[in-house]
Amino acid sequence: MKLVRYGAPGSEKPGIIDSQGKIRDLSEQVVDISSATLAAGALRDLASLNIDDLPLVPGEPRLGPCVGGVGKFLCIGLNYSDHAAETGASVPPEPVLFTKATSAIIGPNDDVRLPRGSTKTDWEVELGIVIGSACKYVSETDALDHVAGYCVVNDLSEREYQLERSGTWDKGKGCDTFGPLGPWLVTKDEVPDPCALHMWLDVNGHRFQDGSTATMVYRPAFLVSYLSQFMTLHPGDVISTGTPPGVGMGQKPPVFLKVGDRIDLGIEGLGSQHQRVVEDRGLPDNA
Amino acid sequence: MKLVRYGAPGSEKPGIIDSQGKIRDLSEQVVDISSATLAAGALRDLASLNIDDLPLVPGEPRLGPCVGGVGKFLCIGLNYSDHAAETGASVPPEPVLFTKATSAIIGPNDDVRLPRGSTKTDWEVELGIVIGSACKYVSETDALDHVAGYCVVNDLSEREYQLERSGTWDKGKGCDTFGPLGPWLVTKDEVPDPCALHMWLDVNGHRFQDGSTATMVYRPAFLVSYLSQFMTLHPGDVISTGTPPGVGMGQKPPVFLKVGDRIDLGIEGLGSQHQRVVEDRGLPDNA
Repeated sequence: MKLVRYGAPGSEKPGIIDSQGKIRDLSEQVVDISSATLAAGALRDLASLNIDDLPLVPGEPRLGPCVGGVGKFLCIGLNYSDHAAETGASVPPEPVLFTKATSAIIGPNDDVRLPRGSTKTDWEVELGIVIGSACKYVSETDALDHVAGYCVVNDLSEREYQLERSGTWDKGKGCDTFGPLGPWLVTKDEVPDPCALHMWLDVNGHRFQDGSTATMVYRPAFLVSYLSQFMTLHPGDVISTGTPPGVGMGQKPPVFLKVGDRIDLGIEGLGSQHQRVVEDRGLPDNA
Repeated sequence: MKLVRYGAPGSEKPGIIDSQGKIRDLSEQVVDISSATLAAGALRDLASLNIDDLPLVPGEPRLGPCVGGVGKFLCIGLNYSDHAAETGASVPPEPVLFTKATSAIIGPNDDVRLPRGSTKTDWEVELGIVIGSACKYVSETDALDHVAGYCVVNDLSEREYQLERSGTWDKGKGCDTFGPLGPWLVTKDEVPDPCALHMWLDVNGHRFQDGSTATMVYRPAFLVSYLSQFMTLHPGDVISTGTPPGVGMGQKPPVFLKVGDRIDLGIEGLGSQHQRVVEDRGLPDNA
Protein backbone atom coordinates (compact mmCIF):
# COMPACT_ATOMS: atom_id res chain seq x y z
CA MET A 1 0.00 0.00 0.00
CA LYS A 2 1.00 3.57 -0.68
CA LEU A 3 -0.60 5.59 2.09
CA VAL A 4 -0.95 9.38 2.00
CA ARG A 5 -2.34 12.20 4.08
CA TYR A 6 -4.00 14.98 2.09
CA GLY A 7 -5.58 18.34 2.86
CA ALA A 8 -4.68 21.47 4.80
CA PRO A 9 -1.79 21.45 7.31
CA GLY A 10 -2.95 20.08 10.63
CA SER A 11 -6.22 18.66 9.28
CA GLU A 12 -5.00 16.07 6.79
CA LYS A 13 -7.22 13.12 5.89
CA PRO A 14 -5.98 9.59 5.22
CA GLY A 15 -5.80 8.28 1.67
CA ILE A 16 -4.32 5.55 -0.45
CA ILE A 17 -2.92 5.52 -3.99
CA ASP A 18 -4.92 3.42 -6.43
CA SER A 19 -3.77 1.44 -9.46
CA GLN A 20 -4.02 4.61 -11.61
CA GLY A 21 -1.94 6.71 -9.21
CA LYS A 22 -5.00 8.60 -7.94
CA ILE A 23 -5.82 9.23 -4.28
CA ARG A 24 -8.70 7.27 -2.78
CA ASP A 25 -10.18 8.41 0.51
CA LEU A 26 -9.68 6.25 3.63
CA SER A 27 -11.66 8.40 6.08
CA GLU A 28 -14.28 5.69 6.52
CA GLN A 29 -11.60 3.15 7.41
CA VAL A 30 -9.15 5.06 9.64
CA VAL A 31 -9.06 8.44 11.38
CA ASP A 32 -5.52 9.17 10.16
CA ILE A 33 -2.23 7.58 9.14
CA SER A 34 -0.44 8.39 12.36
CA SER A 35 1.40 7.12 15.39
CA ALA A 36 -1.94 6.52 17.12
CA THR A 37 -3.60 4.59 14.27
CA LEU A 38 -0.47 2.58 13.48
CA ALA A 39 -0.40 1.61 17.17
CA ALA A 40 -4.05 0.60 16.93
CA GLY A 41 -3.39 -1.72 13.99
CA ALA A 42 -4.41 0.51 11.06
CA LEU A 43 -2.23 -1.36 8.57
CA ARG A 44 -3.81 -4.69 9.45
CA ASP A 45 -7.29 -3.16 9.07
CA LEU A 46 -6.46 -1.74 5.64
CA ALA A 47 -4.72 -4.76 4.17
CA SER A 48 -7.85 -6.46 2.81
CA LEU A 49 -9.37 -3.38 1.11
CA ASN A 50 -10.28 -3.29 -2.54
CA ILE A 51 -8.57 0.02 -3.16
CA ASP A 52 -10.18 0.84 -6.50
CA ASP A 53 -13.65 0.66 -4.90
CA LEU A 54 -12.89 3.50 -2.46
CA PRO A 55 -14.11 7.06 -3.09
CA LEU A 56 -11.88 8.97 -5.49
CA VAL A 57 -10.47 12.20 -4.05
CA PRO A 58 -11.16 14.99 -6.56
CA GLY A 59 -8.54 17.45 -7.79
CA GLU A 60 -4.95 17.55 -6.70
CA PRO A 61 -4.98 18.28 -2.99
CA ARG A 62 -1.91 19.25 -1.01
CA LEU A 63 -0.11 16.25 0.48
CA GLY A 64 0.81 16.35 4.15
CA PRO A 65 3.64 14.43 5.78
CA CYS A 66 2.88 10.75 5.10
CA VAL A 67 2.69 9.94 8.81
CA GLY A 68 1.17 12.16 11.50
CA GLY A 69 1.93 12.51 15.19
CA VAL A 70 5.56 11.48 14.79
CA GLY A 71 7.00 11.07 18.28
CA LYS A 72 10.68 10.77 17.44
CA PHE A 73 12.53 11.80 14.28
CA LEU A 74 15.85 9.99 14.64
CA CYS A 75 18.59 10.37 12.07
CA ILE A 76 21.74 8.51 11.21
CA GLY A 77 24.74 10.54 10.11
CA LEU A 78 27.58 9.61 7.77
CA ASN A 79 25.94 6.33 6.79
CA TYR A 80 27.17 6.21 3.17
CA SER A 81 30.91 5.76 2.93
CA ASP A 82 31.24 8.03 -0.11
CA HIS A 83 29.18 10.81 1.56
CA ALA A 84 31.36 10.58 4.68
CA ALA A 85 34.37 11.03 2.45
CA GLU A 86 32.95 14.15 0.75
CA THR A 87 32.33 15.83 4.13
CA GLY A 88 35.87 15.03 5.28
CA ALA A 89 34.72 12.48 7.86
CA SER A 90 35.25 8.74 8.04
CA VAL A 91 32.51 6.17 8.57
CA PRO A 92 32.12 5.87 12.34
CA PRO A 93 32.60 2.52 14.13
CA GLU A 94 28.91 2.51 15.05
CA PRO A 95 25.94 4.56 13.80
CA VAL A 96 25.93 8.29 14.54
CA LEU A 97 22.57 9.30 16.03
CA PHE A 98 21.18 12.80 15.97
CA THR A 99 17.65 14.14 16.26
CA LYS A 100 15.45 16.36 14.14
CA ALA A 101 12.72 18.34 15.90
CA THR A 102 9.32 16.89 14.99
CA SER A 103 8.12 20.48 14.46
CA ALA A 104 10.36 20.51 11.37
CA ILE A 105 8.11 17.99 9.60
CA ILE A 106 6.18 19.20 6.55
CA GLY A 107 4.50 17.72 3.50
CA PRO A 108 6.63 16.50 0.59
CA ASN A 109 5.83 19.46 -1.64
CA ASP A 110 5.50 22.24 0.93
CA ASP A 111 7.79 25.25 0.78
CA VAL A 112 11.15 25.01 2.53
CA ARG A 113 11.79 28.16 4.56
CA LEU A 114 15.30 29.51 4.69
CA PRO A 115 15.98 30.52 8.33
CA ARG A 116 16.61 34.25 8.75
CA GLY A 117 20.22 35.00 7.99
CA SER A 118 20.98 31.47 6.82
CA THR A 119 23.78 31.16 4.28
CA LYS A 120 24.46 27.42 4.50
CA THR A 121 21.18 25.55 4.11
CA ASP A 122 21.78 22.17 2.47
CA TRP A 123 19.81 19.18 1.17
CA GLU A 124 20.02 15.40 1.76
CA VAL A 125 17.81 12.78 0.11
CA GLU A 126 17.31 9.91 2.56
CA LEU A 127 15.41 6.66 3.00
CA GLY A 128 13.05 6.99 5.98
CA ILE A 129 11.96 3.99 8.03
CA VAL A 130 8.52 4.30 9.69
CA ILE A 131 8.09 2.19 12.82
CA GLY A 132 4.88 0.17 12.97
CA SER A 133 4.96 -1.41 16.42
CA ALA A 134 6.87 -0.75 19.64
CA CYS A 135 10.20 -2.48 20.12
CA LYS A 136 13.04 -2.47 22.65
CA TYR A 137 16.18 -4.57 22.61
CA VAL A 138 14.98 -6.21 19.39
CA SER A 139 17.37 -8.46 17.46
CA GLU A 140 18.44 -7.62 13.92
CA THR A 141 16.60 -10.76 12.78
CA ASP A 142 13.30 -9.56 14.23
CA ALA A 143 13.77 -5.83 13.63
CA LEU A 144 11.83 -5.51 10.37
CA ASP A 145 8.77 -7.08 12.05
CA HIS A 146 8.42 -3.67 13.74
CA VAL A 147 8.67 -1.60 10.56
CA ALA A 148 5.47 -0.30 8.91
CA GLY A 149 7.19 0.86 5.76
CA TYR A 150 9.42 3.42 4.11
CA CYS A 151 9.27 6.96 2.79
CA VAL A 152 11.39 9.68 1.20
CA VAL A 153 12.92 12.22 3.60
CA ASN A 154 14.69 15.45 2.71
CA ASP A 155 16.99 15.90 5.72
CA LEU A 156 17.61 19.62 5.33
CA SER A 157 20.43 21.12 7.42
CA GLU A 158 21.82 24.55 8.15
CA ARG A 159 25.54 23.70 8.15
CA GLU A 160 26.68 26.77 10.07
CA TYR A 161 24.13 26.09 12.83
CA GLN A 162 25.00 22.37 12.73
CA LEU A 163 28.77 22.64 12.81
CA GLU A 164 29.92 26.12 13.80
CA ARG A 165 27.52 27.31 16.52
CA SER A 166 28.49 25.22 19.60
CA GLY A 167 26.93 21.97 20.65
CA THR A 168 25.43 19.07 18.80
CA TRP A 169 24.21 18.81 15.23
CA ASP A 170 20.59 19.22 16.38
CA LYS A 171 20.77 23.04 16.21
CA GLY A 172 21.07 22.95 12.42
CA LYS A 173 18.78 20.00 11.79
CA GLY A 174 15.49 20.96 13.41
CA CYS A 175 14.64 24.29 11.78
CA ASP A 176 11.01 24.69 10.70
CA THR A 177 10.31 22.94 7.35
CA PHE A 178 13.59 20.99 7.47
CA GLY A 179 11.82 17.62 7.43
CA PRO A 180 9.63 16.95 4.37
CA LEU A 181 8.18 13.40 4.66
CA GLY A 182 6.51 11.55 1.82
CA PRO A 183 4.73 11.62 -0.59
CA TRP A 184 3.76 8.11 0.51
CA LEU A 185 4.25 5.74 3.38
CA VAL A 186 4.97 2.65 1.30
CA THR A 187 4.27 -0.48 3.33
CA LYS A 188 7.19 -2.86 3.56
CA ASP A 189 5.50 -5.62 1.54
CA GLU A 190 6.00 -3.34 -1.50
CA VAL A 191 9.70 -2.80 -0.71
CA PRO A 192 11.21 -6.29 -0.73
CA ASP A 193 14.78 -4.93 -0.63
CA PRO A 194 15.17 -1.45 0.89
CA CYS A 195 18.89 -1.67 0.13
CA ALA A 196 18.57 -1.70 -3.66
CA LEU A 197 16.79 1.58 -4.39
CA HIS A 198 17.98 4.32 -6.71
CA MET A 199 17.79 7.78 -5.09
CA TRP A 200 18.36 11.23 -6.50
CA LEU A 201 18.11 14.95 -5.77
CA ASP A 202 18.14 17.90 -8.17
CA VAL A 203 18.44 21.61 -7.40
CA ASN A 204 17.11 23.86 -10.15
CA GLY A 205 17.27 20.91 -12.52
CA HIS A 206 20.91 20.05 -11.83
CA ARG A 207 21.42 16.55 -10.46
CA PHE A 208 23.52 16.80 -7.29
CA GLN A 209 22.73 13.44 -5.69
CA ASP A 210 22.51 10.24 -7.74
CA GLY A 211 23.04 7.23 -5.57
CA SER A 212 21.57 4.03 -4.24
CA THR A 213 20.60 2.67 -0.87
CA ALA A 214 22.89 -0.22 -1.84
CA THR A 215 25.87 1.78 -0.54
CA MET A 216 24.45 2.28 2.96
CA VAL A 217 26.86 1.16 5.67
CA TYR A 218 24.39 0.41 8.49
CA ARG A 219 21.19 -1.01 7.01
CA PRO A 220 17.56 -0.75 8.15
CA ALA A 221 17.32 -4.00 10.14
CA PHE A 222 20.59 -3.23 11.90
CA LEU A 223 19.58 0.37 12.61
CA VAL A 224 16.21 -0.55 14.13
CA SER A 225 17.90 -3.16 16.32
CA TYR A 226 20.73 -0.79 17.24
CA LEU A 227 18.53 2.17 18.20
CA SER A 228 16.22 -0.09 20.20
CA GLN A 229 19.15 -0.88 22.50
CA PHE A 230 19.08 2.76 23.63
CA MET A 231 15.38 3.60 23.62
CA THR A 232 11.99 2.14 22.80
CA LEU A 233 10.93 2.78 19.23
CA HIS A 234 7.23 3.58 19.02
CA PRO A 235 4.72 3.36 16.14
CA GLY A 236 5.05 6.44 13.95
CA ASP A 237 8.68 7.10 14.89
CA VAL A 238 10.74 7.89 11.82
CA ILE A 239 14.38 6.89 11.33
CA SER A 240 16.15 8.74 8.52
CA THR A 241 19.06 6.62 7.41
CA GLY A 242 21.65 8.97 5.96
CA THR A 243 22.43 10.35 2.54
CA PRO A 244 24.59 9.43 -0.46
CA PRO A 245 27.19 11.83 -1.90
CA GLY A 246 26.29 15.12 -3.52
CA VAL A 247 25.27 17.44 -0.71
CA GLY A 248 25.90 21.17 -1.15
CA MET A 249 28.61 21.25 1.50
CA GLY A 250 30.57 18.67 -0.49
CA GLN A 251 30.71 20.69 -3.73
CA LYS A 252 33.90 22.51 -4.69
CA PRO A 253 33.19 25.32 -3.99
CA PRO A 254 30.20 24.56 -1.69
CA VAL A 255 26.70 25.30 -3.00
CA PHE A 256 23.88 26.21 -0.64
CA LEU A 257 20.17 26.88 -1.08
CA LYS A 258 18.80 30.37 -1.71
CA VAL A 259 15.33 31.86 -1.97
CA GLY A 260 13.71 30.86 -5.26
CA ASP A 261 15.52 27.54 -5.64
CA ARG A 262 13.61 24.44 -6.57
CA ILE A 263 14.43 21.03 -5.06
CA ASP A 264 13.26 17.76 -6.63
CA LEU A 265 14.15 14.46 -5.04
CA GLY A 266 12.98 10.90 -4.95
CA ILE A 267 13.66 7.26 -4.24
CA GLU A 268 12.79 4.38 -6.58
CA GLY A 269 9.35 3.02 -5.65
CA LEU A 270 8.79 5.58 -2.88
CA GLY A 271 7.79 8.59 -4.98
CA SER A 272 9.20 12.08 -5.30
CA GLN A 273 9.18 15.44 -3.51
CA HIS A 274 9.22 18.94 -4.99
CA GLN A 275 10.03 21.98 -2.83
CA ARG A 276 10.45 25.65 -3.46
CA VAL A 277 12.82 27.60 -1.17
CA VAL A 278 11.21 30.70 0.31
CA GLU A 279 11.95 33.32 2.96
CA ASP A 280 10.96 32.48 6.51
CA ARG A 281 8.15 34.82 7.46
CA GLY A 282 7.91 33.73 11.12
CA LEU A 283 5.45 31.32 12.69
CA PRO A 284 4.71 28.33 10.45
CA ASP A 285 1.25 27.18 9.37
CA ASN A 286 1.20 24.49 12.05
CA ALA A 287 1.93 26.86 15.00
CA MET B 1 -1.02 27.55 40.11
CA LYS B 2 0.65 24.21 40.68
CA LEU B 3 -0.75 21.91 38.03
CA VAL B 4 -0.38 18.14 38.12
CA ARG B 5 -1.36 15.08 36.14
CA TYR B 6 -2.34 12.05 38.22
CA GLY B 7 -3.31 8.44 37.56
CA ALA B 8 -2.00 5.52 35.54
CA PRO B 9 0.64 6.06 32.81
CA GLY B 10 -1.02 7.17 29.60
CA SER B 11 -4.38 7.96 31.22
CA GLU B 12 -3.46 10.75 33.62
CA LYS B 13 -6.11 13.25 34.71
CA PRO B 14 -5.50 16.95 35.30
CA GLY B 15 -5.32 18.31 38.83
CA ILE B 16 -4.21 21.30 40.84
CA ILE B 17 -2.56 21.59 44.25
CA ASP B 18 -4.72 23.31 46.88
CA SER B 19 -3.72 25.49 49.81
CA GLN B 20 -3.23 22.36 51.96
CA GLY B 21 -0.98 20.66 49.39
CA LYS B 22 -3.73 18.23 48.34
CA ILE B 23 -4.69 17.43 44.76
CA ARG B 24 -7.99 18.81 43.47
CA ASP B 25 -9.50 17.37 40.31
CA LEU B 26 -9.65 19.55 37.19
CA SER B 27 -11.37 17.05 34.88
CA GLU B 28 -14.48 19.23 34.67
CA GLN B 29 -12.39 22.21 33.57
CA VAL B 30 -9.80 20.77 31.15
CA VAL B 31 -9.23 17.46 29.38
CA ASP B 32 -5.53 17.42 30.32
CA ILE B 33 -2.52 19.60 31.11
CA SER B 34 -0.86 19.12 27.76
CA SER B 35 0.48 20.69 24.60
CA ALA B 36 -3.04 20.65 23.13
CA THR B 37 -4.80 22.24 26.11
CA LEU B 38 -2.05 24.82 26.68
CA ALA B 39 -2.44 25.76 23.01
CA ALA B 40 -6.18 26.08 23.53
CA GLY B 41 -5.75 28.50 26.44
CA ALA B 42 -6.09 26.14 29.40
CA LEU B 43 -4.12 28.39 31.75
CA ARG B 44 -6.36 31.35 31.01
CA ASP B 45 -9.44 29.22 31.63
CA LEU B 46 -8.11 27.98 34.97
CA ALA B 47 -6.86 31.30 36.33
CA SER B 48 -10.14 32.37 37.92
CA LEU B 49 -10.92 29.10 39.71
CA ASN B 50 -11.54 28.87 43.43
CA ILE B 51 -9.21 25.92 43.91
CA ASP B 52 -10.37 24.86 47.35
CA ASP B 53 -13.92 24.38 46.02
CA LEU B 54 -12.82 21.73 43.51
CA PRO B 55 -13.31 17.98 44.20
CA LEU B 56 -10.58 16.55 46.41
CA VAL B 57 -8.70 13.63 44.86
CA PRO B 58 -8.69 10.79 47.41
CA GLY B 59 -5.57 8.88 48.40
CA GLU B 60 -2.11 9.45 47.04
CA PRO B 61 -2.30 8.67 43.33
CA ARG B 62 0.75 8.29 41.12
CA LEU B 63 1.84 11.56 39.53
CA GLY B 64 2.48 11.60 35.80
CA PRO B 65 4.77 13.99 33.98
CA CYS B 66 3.39 17.47 34.74
CA VAL B 67 2.78 18.21 31.05
CA GLY B 68 1.49 15.72 28.48
CA GLY B 69 2.01 15.49 24.75
CA VAL B 70 5.42 17.18 24.86
CA GLY B 71 6.48 17.83 21.27
CA LYS B 72 10.11 18.81 21.84
CA PHE B 73 12.34 18.16 24.84
CA LEU B 74 15.23 20.54 24.24
CA CYS B 75 18.19 20.68 26.57
CA ILE B 76 20.99 23.12 27.21
CA GLY B 77 24.40 21.68 28.09
CA LEU B 78 27.19 23.15 30.19
CA ASN B 79 25.04 26.08 31.31
CA TYR B 80 26.51 26.44 34.82
CA SER B 81 30.11 27.56 34.77
CA ASP B 82 31.11 25.42 37.76
CA HIS B 83 29.45 22.30 36.22
CA ALA B 84 31.30 22.89 32.96
CA ALA B 85 34.51 23.01 34.95
CA GLU B 86 33.82 19.70 36.73
CA THR B 87 33.26 17.93 33.41
CA GLY B 88 36.50 19.33 32.01
CA ALA B 89 34.71 21.64 29.54
CA SER B 90 34.52 25.41 29.35
CA VAL B 91 31.32 27.44 29.03
CA PRO B 92 30.60 27.64 25.31
CA PRO B 93 30.30 30.99 23.51
CA GLU B 94 26.61 30.33 22.88
CA PRO B 95 24.18 27.77 24.33
CA VAL B 96 24.80 24.10 23.57
CA LEU B 97 21.60 22.47 22.34
CA PHE B 98 20.88 18.77 22.48
CA THR B 99 17.64 16.80 22.45
CA LYS B 100 16.06 14.22 24.71
CA ALA B 101 13.62 11.76 23.16
CA THR B 102 10.09 12.56 24.34
CA SER B 103 9.61 8.81 24.92
CA ALA B 104 12.06 9.22 27.84
CA ILE B 105 9.52 11.30 29.78
CA ILE B 106 8.10 9.76 32.99
CA GLY B 107 6.40 10.93 36.15
CA PRO B 108 8.48 12.55 38.90
CA ASN B 109 8.43 9.52 41.17
CA ASP B 110 8.41 6.70 38.60
CA ASP B 111 11.23 4.18 38.57
CA VAL B 112 14.34 5.01 36.57
CA ARG B 113 15.38 2.02 34.46
CA LEU B 114 19.06 1.33 34.06
CA PRO B 115 19.64 0.45 30.38
CA ARG B 116 20.92 -3.10 29.88
CA GLY B 117 24.66 -3.16 30.35
CA SER B 118 24.83 0.46 31.49
CA THR B 119 27.72 1.29 33.80
CA LYS B 120 27.67 5.10 33.57
CA THR B 121 24.14 6.33 34.23
CA ASP B 122 24.23 9.77 35.82
CA TRP B 123 21.85 12.36 37.29
CA GLU B 124 21.31 16.10 36.72
CA VAL B 125 18.78 18.29 38.55
CA GLU B 126 17.58 20.99 36.18
CA LEU B 127 15.09 23.82 35.90
CA GLY B 128 12.61 23.04 33.11
CA ILE B 129 10.82 25.77 31.16
CA VAL B 130 7.38 24.83 29.77
CA ILE B 131 6.33 26.79 26.68
CA GLY B 132 2.80 28.18 26.80
CA SER B 133 2.33 29.72 23.36
CA ALA B 134 4.07 29.42 20.00
CA CYS B 135 6.98 31.73 19.28
CA LYS B 136 9.57 32.22 16.54
CA TYR B 137 12.27 34.87 16.36
CA VAL B 138 11.04 36.26 19.69
CA SER B 139 13.10 38.94 21.44
CA GLU B 140 14.57 38.35 24.88
CA THR B 141 12.27 41.10 26.18
CA ASP B 142 9.15 39.30 24.98
CA ALA B 143 10.35 35.72 25.50
CA LEU B 144 8.76 35.06 28.89
CA ASP B 145 5.34 36.03 27.47
CA HIS B 146 5.49 32.62 25.79
CA VAL B 147 6.38 30.64 28.93
CA ALA B 148 3.62 28.79 30.81
CA GLY B 149 5.74 27.98 33.81
CA TYR B 150 8.52 25.90 35.27
CA CYS B 151 9.13 22.41 36.57
CA VAL B 152 11.82 20.14 37.97
CA VAL B 153 13.62 17.90 35.44
CA ASN B 154 16.02 15.05 36.18
CA ASP B 155 18.12 15.03 33.01
CA LEU B 156 19.46 11.49 33.31
CA SER B 157 22.33 10.53 31.00
CA GLU B 158 24.29 7.41 30.14
CA ARG B 159 27.75 8.92 29.89
CA GLU B 160 29.29 6.10 27.85
CA TYR B 161 26.45 6.28 25.30
CA GLN B 162 26.63 10.09 25.35
CA LEU B 163 30.37 10.54 24.99
CA GLU B 164 32.07 7.31 23.89
CA ARG B 165 29.71 5.69 21.34
CA SER B 166 30.03 7.91 18.21
CA GLY B 167 27.81 10.79 17.30
CA THR B 168 25.96 13.39 19.28
CA TRP B 169 25.01 13.43 22.95
CA ASP B 170 21.44 12.35 22.08
CA LYS B 171 22.35 8.63 22.20
CA GLY B 172 22.92 8.81 25.94
CA LYS B 173 20.18 11.29 26.79
CA GLY B 174 17.01 9.72 25.42
CA CYS B 175 16.91 6.29 27.08
CA ASP B 176 13.52 5.25 28.41
CA THR B 177 12.76 6.85 31.83
CA PHE B 178 15.61 9.38 31.48
CA GLY B 179 13.27 12.37 31.69
CA PRO B 180 11.22 12.64 34.91
CA LEU B 181 9.13 15.85 34.75
CA GLY B 182 7.35 17.40 37.72
CA PRO B 183 5.82 17.01 40.26
CA TRP B 184 4.13 20.27 39.24
CA LEU B 185 3.95 22.66 36.37
CA VAL B 186 4.23 25.86 38.41
CA THR B 187 2.81 28.77 36.47
CA LYS B 188 5.22 31.65 36.02
CA ASP B 189 3.20 34.06 38.19
CA GLU B 190 4.35 31.94 41.16
CA VAL B 191 8.02 32.09 40.10
CA PRO B 192 8.85 35.79 40.01
CA ASP B 193 12.59 35.12 39.64
CA PRO B 194 13.50 31.76 38.04
CA CYS B 195 17.18 32.67 38.53
CA ALA B 196 17.12 32.67 42.34
CA LEU B 197 16.04 29.13 43.19
CA HIS B 198 17.90 26.67 45.40
CA MET B 199 18.24 23.23 43.77
CA TRP B 200 19.55 19.95 45.11
CA LEU B 201 19.93 16.26 44.37
CA ASP B 202 20.68 13.38 46.75
CA VAL B 203 21.59 9.78 45.92
CA ASN B 204 20.95 7.34 48.77
CA GLY B 205 20.72 10.29 51.13
CA HIS B 206 24.07 11.80 50.18
CA ARG B 207 23.82 15.32 48.78
CA PHE B 208 25.68 15.44 45.49
CA GLN B 209 24.17 18.59 43.96
CA ASP B 210 23.53 21.70 46.05
CA GLY B 211 23.31 24.75 43.83
CA SER B 212 21.17 27.60 42.67
CA THR B 213 19.71 28.74 39.38
CA ALA B 214 21.51 32.01 40.20
CA THR B 215 24.70 30.59 38.67
CA MET B 216 23.13 29.81 35.27
CA VAL B 217 25.07 31.32 32.39
CA TYR B 218 22.30 31.59 29.78
CA ARG B 219 19.01 32.42 31.51
CA PRO B 220 15.41 31.47 30.64
CA ALA B 221 14.42 34.61 28.69
CA PHE B 222 17.63 34.45 26.70
CA LEU B 223 17.27 30.72 26.04
CA VAL B 224 13.68 30.99 24.78
CA SER B 225 14.67 33.85 22.50
CA TYR B 226 17.83 32.04 21.34
CA LEU B 227 16.14 28.72 20.53
CA SER B 228 13.31 30.49 18.72
CA GLN B 229 15.85 31.79 16.21
CA PHE B 230 16.37 28.19 15.08
CA MET B 231 12.90 26.69 15.36
CA THR B 232 9.38 27.49 16.44
CA LEU B 233 8.74 26.69 20.07
CA HIS B 234 5.27 25.24 20.56
CA PRO B 235 2.99 25.00 23.62
CA GLY B 236 4.06 22.06 25.76
CA ASP B 237 7.65 22.07 24.56
CA VAL B 238 10.07 21.69 27.47
CA ILE B 239 13.49 23.33 27.67
CA SER B 240 15.77 21.88 30.33
CA THR B 241 18.30 24.50 31.23
CA GLY B 242 21.39 22.69 32.46
CA THR B 243 22.68 21.49 35.80
CA PRO B 244 24.84 22.85 38.62
CA PRO B 245 27.93 20.96 39.84
CA GLY B 246 27.79 17.59 41.53
CA VAL B 247 27.01 15.09 38.78
CA GLY B 248 28.36 11.55 39.13
CA MET B 249 30.82 11.93 36.28
CA GLY B 250 32.40 14.87 38.14
CA GLN B 251 33.18 12.93 41.34
CA LYS B 252 36.70 11.73 42.04
CA PRO B 253 36.48 8.84 41.37
CA PRO B 254 33.23 9.03 39.31
CA VAL B 255 30.06 7.66 40.89
CA PHE B 256 27.27 6.22 38.73
CA LEU B 257 23.79 4.89 39.46
CA LYS B 258 23.15 1.21 40.18
CA VAL B 259 20.05 -0.89 40.69
CA GLY B 260 18.53 -0.20 44.10
CA ASP B 261 19.73 3.39 44.36
CA ARG B 262 17.34 6.11 45.46
CA ILE B 263 17.40 9.59 43.92
CA ASP B 264 15.76 12.60 45.58
CA LEU B 265 15.89 16.00 43.96
CA GLY B 266 14.08 19.29 43.99
CA ILE B 267 14.03 22.97 43.24
CA GLU B 268 12.81 25.66 45.64
CA GLY B 269 9.12 26.36 45.00
CA LEU B 270 8.83 23.71 42.26
CA GLY B 271 8.59 20.59 44.43
CA SER B 272 10.64 17.42 44.60
CA GLN B 273 11.10 14.10 42.79
CA HIS B 274 11.90 10.67 44.23
CA GLN B 275 13.07 7.83 42.00
CA ARG B 276 14.24 4.29 42.57
CA VAL B 277 16.74 2.80 40.11
CA VAL B 278 15.62 -0.56 38.73
CA GLU B 279 16.62 -3.01 36.01
CA ASP B 280 15.22 -2.39 32.55
CA ARG B 281 12.84 -5.24 31.82
CA GLY B 282 12.12 -4.22 28.21
CA LEU B 283 9.15 -2.32 26.84
CA PRO B 284 8.03 0.51 29.13
CA ASP B 285 4.51 0.99 30.48
CA ASN B 286 3.75 3.60 27.82
CA ALA B 287 4.68 1.38 24.83
